[in-house]
Amino acid sequence: MHDLTKPPPRPAHRAARGHRWEGVEVRPYKEDERALFKTISRQILFCDPKLDSELRYFEVEPGGFSTLERHDHMHAVMVLHGRGHCLVGAEVRGIELHDLVIVPPWTWHQFRATAREKLGFLCMVNSHRDKPQLPTESDLAELRQDAAVASFLEGAPHPAEPSAKVTPAGSQH
Amino acid sequence: MHDLTKPPPRPAHRAARGHRWEGVEVRPYKEDERALFKTISRQILFCDPKLDSELRYFEVEPGGFSTLERHDHMHAVMVLHGRGHCLVGAEVRGIELHDLVIVPPWTWHQFRATAREKLGFLCMVNSHRDKPQLPTESDLAELRQDAAVASFLEGAPHPAEPSAKVTPAGSQH
Repeated sequence: MHDLTKPPPRPAHRAARGHRWEGVEVRPYKEDERALFKTISRQILFCDPKLDSELRYFEVEPGGFSTLERHDHMHAVMVLHGRGHCLVGAEVRGIELHDLVIVPPWTWHQFRATAREKLGFLCMVNSHRDKPQLPTESDLAELRQDAAVASFLEGAPHPAEPSAKVTPAGSQH
Repeated sequence: MHDLTKPPPRPAHRAARGHRWEGVEVRPYKEDERALFKTISRQILFCDPKLDSELRYFEVEPGGFSTLERHDHMHAVMVLHGRGHCLVGAEVRGIELHDLVIVPPWTWHQFRATAREKLGFLCMVNSHRDKPQLPTESDLAELRQDAAVASFLEGAPHPAEPSAKVTPAGSQH
């Protein structure tokens, strides 16, 4: 294992071009068809059996948003580009370059770009983790009791709602 | 655990000011007195019992460098500021904004700022990990057989060497 003449299993160095990286595929945000989201992509920057976590880069186009969800595992987020808003529990916050966001276990969360600027963020997550849970009608009703949360969520109604209408994110803030 | 009225255990959102963060202490790079390094600081951005990894930010002043070392655990690095050079195994590479560097297990590695610009980088690492190993004289001799590696290392001789003389990093590149 100390043989320096053996090449590492992958290139040690992968150059960045904007917010794309050598050898890193731009993937759909997620596979779950029930989840509601808009114009967001995913790139897996680091994933290895010897690493206990993954580092991903998510990019949300202007007006786009991630899925409103919760789970047992935590998210550790750093904004890498642009600005936006996030919901964590009952708290809505504006987020900017290099800001940090921690999503505690079983906490509803969502990330939104503003209407004019895309939002890019890193997300560190345990490699072994549970599947996200989507909100029920009752969960949404509870969340909407807070006016700021209700306003934040207005752009992304639950897919089960027949009157679901997607309005540009950021226009309420 | 679904009580939204309970505040999270720490602020969910910590704003960035340049490359400093709310509630994040700027710490010495490391405690090991035998290790050789120069003008480098450490900030722990994410560390939690529920996270299987930590995310740290290291900042190397112009001419500074991290310790030359190896260990079983991997490093997953992203450049967040400036530029520099890194050694990974037998490979010396220039690194720039948002470039990715993976350090495989038991691979000698070191990060250096250029003489004129500081280098800041994120490093994701398993929370449970082994202690770094420092190079012996024999390890250093083996590394120096490669001319590019020898040149890279010239600025940071092993502390055991009586003639150890620290010259500005970057001047050889």
